[in-house]
Amino acid sequence: MNNPKKYLIKFIPSGKSIKVPQNYNLKQAILDSGIHIDSSCGGVGTCGRCKVCIKEGKVSTKRSKFISPKQKKAGFVLSCLSQVQSDIIVEIPKQKKEKAKIEKGRFADIDSKSYSGISSDEFLSVEIKPWIKKETMSIRKPSLSYGTSDLFRLKKSIRENLGIENCTAPIHIIRQLPQVLREKDWKVTVIVDKENSTLIDIQPGSSGKKSYGLALDIGTTSLVIYLVDLTDGKIISSESEYNPQIRFGEDIINRIVYANKKGGLAKLREVILDSINDLILKLLAGSNVDVDSIVSVMVSGNSTMMHLFYGVPPRYIREEPYVTVANKFSNSTAKEIGIKHIKNAHVYSIQGVASYLGGDISSGILATGMYEDKELSLFLDLGTNGELVVGNSEWMMGCSCSAGPAFEGGGVKCGIRAVDGAIERVSIDQKTYKCKIGVIGGGKPRGICGSGLIDMIGEIYLKGVIDRKGKFNKDIGNRYLRCVERDCQYVLVNASDSATKKDIYISEVDINNLIRAKAAIYAGVKTLLEEVDLSIYDLKKIYIAGGLGKHLNIRNAVVIGMLPDIDINKYFFMGNTSVTGAYLSLLSENKYRKSSKIAEHITYIELSVNMKFMERYVAGLFLPYTDMKDFPTVEESIYSLKGKKKRGAK
Amino acid sequence: MNNPKKYLIKFIPSGKSIKVPQNYNLKQAILDSGIHIDSSCGGVGTCGRCKVCIKEGKVSTKRSKFISPKQKKAGFVLSCLSQVQSDIIVEIPKQKKEKAKIEKGRFADIDSKSYSGISSDEFLSVEIKPWIKKETMSIRKPSLSYGTSDLFRLKKSIRENLGIENCTAPIHIIRQLPQVLREKDWKVTVIVDKENSTLIDIQPGSSGKKSYGLALDIGTTSLVIYLVDLTDGKIISSESEYNPQIRFGEDIINRIVYANKKGGLAKLREVILDSINDLILKLLAGSNVDVDSIVSVMVSGNSTMMHLFYGVPPRYIREEPYVTVANKFSNSTAKEIGIKHIKNAHVYSIQGVASYLGGDISSGILATGMYEDKELSLFLDLGTNGELVVGNSEWMMGCSCSAGPAFEGGGVKCGIRAVDGAIERVSIDQKTYKCKIGVIGGGKPRGICGSGLIDMIGEIYLKGVIDRKGKFNKDIGNRYLRCVERDCQYVLVNASDSATKKDIYISEVDINNLIRAKAAIYAGVKTLLEEVDLSIYDLKKIYIAGGLGKHLNIRNAVVIGMLPDIDINKYFFMGNTSVTGAYLSLLSENKYRKSSKIAEHITYIELSVNMKFMERYVAGLFLPYTDMKDFPTVEESIYSLKGKKKRGAK
Repeated sequence: MNNPKKYLIKFIPSGKSIKVPQNYNLKQAILDSGIHIDSSCGGVGTCGRCKVCIKEGKVSTKRSKFISPKQKKAGFVLSCLSQVQSDIIVEIPKQKKEKAKIEKGRFADIDSKSYSGISSDEFLSVEIKPWIKKETMSIRKPSLSYGTSDLFRLKKSIRENLGIENCTAPIHIIRQLPQVLREKDWKVTVIVDKENSTLIDIQPGSSGKKSYGLALDIGTTSLVIYLVDLTDGKIISSESEYNPQIRFGEDIINRIVYANKKGGLAKLREVILDSINDLILKLLAGSNVDVDSIVSVMVSGNSTMMHLFYGVPPRYIREEPYVTVANKFSNSTAKEIGIKHIKNAHVYSIQGVASYLGGDISSGILATGMYEDKELSLFLDLGTNGELVVGNSEWMMGCSCSAGPAFEGGGVKCGIRAVDGAIERVSIDQKTYKCKIGVIGGGKPRGICGSGLIDMIGEIYLKGVIDRKGKFNKDIGNRYLRCVERDCQYVLVNASDSATKKDIYISEVDINNLIRAKAAIYAGVKTLLEEVDLSIYDLKKIYIAGGLGKHLNIRNAVVIGMLPDIDINKYFFMGNTSVTGAYLSLLSENKYRKSSKIAEHITYIELSVNMKFMERYVAGLFLPYTDMKDFPTVEESIYSLKGKKKRGAK
Repeated sequence: MNNPKKYLIKFIPSGKSIKVPQNYNLKQAILDSGIHIDSSCGGVGTCGRCKVCIKEGKVSTKRSKFISPKQKKAGFVLSCLSQVQSDIIVEIPKQKKEKAKIEKGRFADIDSKSYSGISSDEFLSVEIKPWIKKETMSIRKPSLSYGTSDLFRLKKSIRENLGIENCTAPIHIIRQLPQVLREKDWKVTVIVDKENSTLIDIQPGSSGKKSYGLALDIGTTSLVIYLVDLTDGKIISSESEYNPQIRFGEDIINRIVYANKKGGLAKLREVILDSINDLILKLLAGSNVDVDSIVSVMVSGNSTMMHLFYGVPPRYIREEPYVTVANKFSNSTAKEIGIKHIKNAHVYSIQGVASYLGGDISSGILATGMYEDKELSLFLDLGTNGELVVGNSEWMMGCSCSAGPAFEGGGVKCGIRAVDGAIERVSIDQKTYKCKIGVIGGGKPRGICGSGLIDMIGEIYLKGVIDRKGKFNKDIGNRYLRCVERDCQYVLVNASDSATKKDIYISEVDINNLIRAKAAIYAGVKTLLEEVDLSIYDLKKIYIAGGLGKHLNIRNAVVIGMLPDIDINKYFFMGNTSVTGAYLSLLSENKYRKSSKIAEHITYIELSVNMKFMERYVAGLFLPYTDMKDFPTVEESIYSLKGKKKRGAK
């Protein structure tokens, strides 16, 4: 019982090998060996991406729809569903490039220059002053006349070299101290958390000046992670992945419901940690970075995601009066949290404001720099929830308005996320009403994403295809319109031209969903501003963050009444500001402290019980708004287009 | 594999039961059930004390010399050597009272009043001001207009009720927070470590004002532990046990050697933790204290014991220049350390001075109060090592001199520890040379312990049985003396009168061992004093600590030249000052800080390379000393006894 038989697994083409006991999970063995394997379902056989080929030996496995009979014959299995039953040789297929087009943030995206907007220098300076210090130093040798303890002499060197008083040494470091100090003749490299005066690691001799950190954004939909050189701020590599919790619920509310079930919270935590552990292996696989030199992790995410990440019940986030358990979690070691591979690293997270205004927003505000700006700015993070913050260096006020899943393609018949094959831009021919579309990644379209929907509705409203209530005009001779029973559908792409061999269309129901989403956003903006007796015309800058931002056509967002009708030059796309803020905080003690100050500084307004918000929301159920005076340039456009048409008709 | 069959164990007479998998160790199952079972060997079958009787069902077990054939037939087994193989019913015999007479310290020993010496009031006041606070408080309910996080509101209440700013909450507490806060309508009892501003535990509702702590002394030979009421300082119960590491080496040096072997350190740590865990169960079994209300542990011990307790390699303690890895270990949770049952409790330890002047000595100095005394005092802890500190409220200087194991009965043919059956007092009839003995616990003697040896040698020296070199006078007609080959032996007890049915005697070799031990102590005292140009006549108080102290006859210790020949009223027996200091520190933040200041305050003198010490040691190899001027009253006694004899002979 105590010494079970172990089997040898050899991996090809890498040549790596590992010994594991019988019945050991094959995917785990692959991960244990430090070999990257794609996976997005958390190891339950539902994504089909951890396929491997057993070249020799035996595994027990389960049937999978991802393995064809032919593949089965050739030895293919899903590694997550397989247990080792003998010595085996396993071929790991070349891993496919991740298809999801997850917004990685302005610093990591290769095509970040294509953002309409501002250069990074303009709004933020990347301050490189992390509170994790790595330093090689000599420790004074003990002698009969200087017989103080190893720890005392080490602390003295740390004080002299780094100016850190009374550094705490965790017991696991004290245990290895005598060996490490003597291994290279009293020369060691120490890694110290200056913020908490704690020793993170100690290595014999000089192990180089380089140390690395991870900036991690845990979004409801996706995870983004950077591997960052802490000495120069360079992003060595970045990875992204869908949040594997999606299969337990698309949005936050469903996740909270699932977390309430027996074992639900543990499961949600487990799958997110699995994904993060996988992403770390991916990051490492693509770099020359030694795992021991990763010393810190900075995590940003909304309040629910942070609760799930730390294993804290999120239940009361969705029950009135909607409170979090904590907005700020104490610093921990990766081991305590459950992050593998980098056990000694310290894990920090960005402080949140409230249940529906989390650390991702504090992080976002940090990324914009608006907390240092005397002029009035508006920050808008557009996702399932629209989070809004208005303010300047003196004050800030924030709120969250549930926009529903429409911006992420949810609740819309042909809606999909902003992945390859998604229609992200639409324009309509004024005469024929034919759609001209732009598809992410080129190729045939599979559906329409949030920015495509906004474009589409803006276009068809301006061109008279729908009225102010979002209902189709049936008498304009639009041959792309078809009415089935009570529902009318506008076909953007015929089945023959789509990747799914089905028509891609939008219906009045879809339009209605989007109108409700945009009404919530605009009502939030109006309510926040009027709380402090300001108007949209007082805004000097509007920062658009979130996955939607990258593909959004601002003009059409204004046309449908989602964004304020002010000078378009005041708008700036910021991309994934949550990971950007985490990146900045990772690199600077000062910025990290700022992020907490931002969180404490923002006054949170609960809109769910705000009557003014409700009034404005109802007023927003028209295109662009009940009172057209709020949208003068839209009125003008409609007038001028109608005029043209009249002239053309003459 | 994942769901192995479990067997039901029922214990009688307690009626408790537990389910365990096949092959589970029976002793572990008993401990898991919270039932106390005697054991001192760490579960390897060598002490024979965990005997139980299998009434029904099957275990697999190993043969043991402690189980007679008759007992075997009746179902008796050693539980530590037995594995569960079916549902069973186990009878736990009534546990015998611990036989070892371990010095439990002045506050816990029932017969502490029998100390010659001082009342506790005179030297120390027990200040009850622990830094662990237990308080029941109401937390403000959240509302839509007060929607801060649970943690924020809790911290606010802690600040308002206890004056503790920004209390840190470990993640395991945050995880249970929402549930605990709401369970009794926002009323909770919090336990906070004020010193480190950390939340230790939180319980729903009012769980009473009482909280408890453990004071623990880890000695080379024995463990002593107190269960202390932190609200009034009362010692609820106390337990003691031999240090189970003894079987890996009697003294510190042998333990260090063993720790250096592969797996040795882990083993030594494991057995000490096992014993501590057992002692905690014993303490609890004898009290009404709820395990959750034990919130802190204060540990005291010499440097090697602390290294082994924390799992830190002690190797360099015995290699020149003799340095510790650490003299102060950071505070930890019981769970981190490996102390079971009381997982959330915080573990603190008393800071040491050097490799051979550990936390037990800082603790001892704290217990004497000499750090606040303007007059010059000497502190002497007598065990395998003699540790000495001299000084006053202005300065302190300390050293350690290896006395060898003679004081603990080691290296002496008929030597035993100060347990039941040990001869602890000896007087000699001037005419017949017959020994009159005092035996610990009464009854027939089994051997002689340290204080008995000192008495014996003092007596026979004064009475002319041995000369100043410790050699027997063969021409005085001593019929208890017998010379076998080159060795002469003085028979104290005939085989017929001893419990072992063998003669109890001391030989010249034994005497020589004791002379070397006493020479080391006295040389240490002289050297320390002369380092600061003082003499023994400047001493106003001499505190005697350690297990030997309780039974020691001061006059005879002076006669053999071990203790300074000054006014006997200046001597005070203090008992186990290590556990007393731990007890005082447990109860008072102020006293705990003092113990660290004491450690930092003491100047350590390394005697092993001190030439003056060596000279004085050699001078001490005579009785009482080379220069009789150091021992005027001893000279006088000898003169007067000789005079009497002469007169008697006339």
